[in-house]
Amino acid sequence: MSKIQLSTKTDELNLNDFIEPVISELSLVEKQLNTNLIDDNLIINELLSMIFKAGGKRIRPLLVLHSAWATNLSEELNDLQIILAVLTELIHTASLVHDDILDSAAVRRGSQTINKRFSDRLAVLLGDLLFAQASICLSKIMSPVIVGIYGQVLGDLCAGEIQQMKQQFSTTISWQDYIKKSISKTGSLFAAGTHSAAILNNANNETVMALKNYGLHLGLCFQIVDDLLDFTGDSTTLGKEAGSDLKSGIITAPALFVLERGDKVANKLEKLISTKEISEPESLQIALDLIKNNGGIESTIDLAKEYGQKAKDNLKDLPNSIYRDALAGFTDYVLKRVN
Amino acid sequence: MSKIQLSTKTDELNLNDFIEPVISELSLVEKQLNTNLIDDNLIINELLSMIFKAGGKRIRPLLVLHSAWATNLSEELNDLQIILAVLTELIHTASLVHDDILDSAAVRRGSQTINKRFSDRLAVLLGDLLFAQASICLSKIMSPVIVGIYGQVLGDLCAGEIQQMKQQFSTTISWQDYIKKSISKTGSLFAAGTHSAAILNNANNETVMALKNYGLHLGLCFQIVDDLLDFTGDSTTLGKEAGSDLKSGIITAPALFVLERGDKVANKLEKLISTKEISEPESLQIALDLIKNNGGIESTIDLAKEYGQKAKDNLKDLPNSIYRDALAGFTDYVLKRVN
Repeated sequence: MSKIQLSTKTDELNLNDFIEPVISELSLVEKQLNTNLIDDNLIINELLSMIFKAGGKRIRPLLVLHSAWATNLSEELNDLQIILAVLTELIHTASLVHDDILDSAAVRRGSQTINKRFSDRLAVLLGDLLFAQASICLSKIMSPVIVGIYGQVLGDLCAGEIQQMKQQFSTTISWQDYIKKSISKTGSLFAAGTHSAAILNNANNETVMALKNYGLHLGLCFQIVDDLLDFTGDSTTLGKEAGSDLKSGIITAPALFVLERGDKVANKLEKLISTKEISEPESLQIALDLIKNNGGIESTIDLAKEYGQKAKDNLKDLPNSIYRDALAGFTDYVLKRVN
Repeated sequence: MSKIQLSTKTDELNLNDFIEPVISELSLVEKQLNTNLIDDNLIINELLSMIFKAGGKRIRPLLVLHSAWATNLSEELNDLQIILAVLTELIHTASLVHDDILDSAAVRRGSQTINKRFSDRLAVLLGDLLFAQASICLSKIMSPVIVGIYGQVLGDLCAGEIQQMKQQFSTTISWQDYIKKSISKTGSLFAAGTHSAAILNNANNETVMALKNYGLHLGLCFQIVDDLLDFTGDSTTLGKEAGSDLKSGIITAPALFVLERGDKVANKLEKLISTKEISEPESLQIALDLIKNNGGIESTIDLAKEYGQKAKDNLKDLPNSIYRDALAGFTDYVLKRVN
């Protein structure tokens, strides 16, 4: 079967196109995200609503819901798929709240971060609260296999952060390291959501694996785009200055493309990083220019497109449906951010 | 049946008495606590060993192992009981690592805390790592019921901290509030361990409930003793100055006993707390003296003994065994800390 082509109409893509087909399910997800599953403590209700009213695109719940419909065309959606969508977003949000402490970030989703607005202490507690809510959701699904998948995701999220911390200012990081870290940070949770939805539908093994690989590659595409936006985005939308990853010694695809050249340009960049000079504003600007003027941005866009295409290719044997189309369209939506 | 009597030989009680009957299982627990279940990342191995070589009395694993044997006298111990003991300690340790950030604590288990020794950031990540390891353990047990029990425990641990934060410097806290918070902080995890062990043995409902109530009451007894030690202990063993809870406006049993008197002494204490004067060293000393001179310590010891007795009473219908005796002896061991 031929490859599913990348859409040529990406300019017209809008998040609403993906929301529309699952809008009723998504409103159930939203309601459950705000539901205190732990006790009758009103403060917990308030904390949840403070976190979730701050917005977020709900990309992971959308992926779960579309994967759930795409592998179950003839029946009503199992209620557990809603819980799966909820817990996937809970884990994502918990990891954001804790990551913002790690990064000392000040802005997230256009609002002040919890750690900045209140304290690191409250942010620790809120992240834990969200993980606890996710665990309670997980227990409701009553599937040891899915508990195992999400347990591994929690481990991967930590392992990704630990690897990133360890490799700060290291210029010997390989593509394999970078891809592994990106899977841990993003691909693992995307894939958990997409293929657990198929598992809940009792889909056959090929379908489950196809949705797992779709999620994994889409997650990689998403992370690469995210890393790219650190070079090209502006501080209003990102909540941090352009180049802030690089400034902290975090090496991502655009820098890797330049470092692997092994020429004078590569040596210059390598020196700026390994000496930590790059943390100074002027040196950072030199490094950003080096990367931009030597194809780092274009090569990274191509890499993201490659993973986007791989994600789509995994959908080819799913039955034709608006949900399959939406999953395919998601890759275009993700790539649109850098086009 | 008559009450199981509190031992008269508490002076002779030693943690080794509880370790001895399950020493081979406990060494398996220790090994698994140090096992990286997430990936092949050596740093994770090192972090785990750094955390667990720091010690800890392993009270929760001991409770799980004795509960496992006490409800399964004729057979070999199910391997899953070891995993249950491991995950119970993992959750406890994770919550300690995160609590130390919340409390800005400097010493734990006789060593510098992670947050003090490294940074709050690493402590966030390490706590998350331990929760992730616990989730992977939980998935191996393959029991949706036990996943549900531990999901609720995670929620309770957060709810307990949130309630405590909310009620700082409030003098209208009731006994019901205090007991609820103590169950959330300590009783819930104790009870999860003891009754999940019985569930894994397919014990009958009465036995499961007896071990749940045993764990709950022992946990309360333990927390009350812990709160008491904040008044009577010294900073070398506690890792914090005596009265540090009260100084932070955290009201526990010894203060509650004085506050409930409704007399001049109570009014004086109430004023020191509600005005936050108590955070000053001299006012703190006045408050500590008020509590000590007006029976706060003695009444709290009696309360702890009461819960210890209730814990024991729940063991009365279990078959006679060294493991049942050990569970009963545990209450004496806990109470020995304040005798």
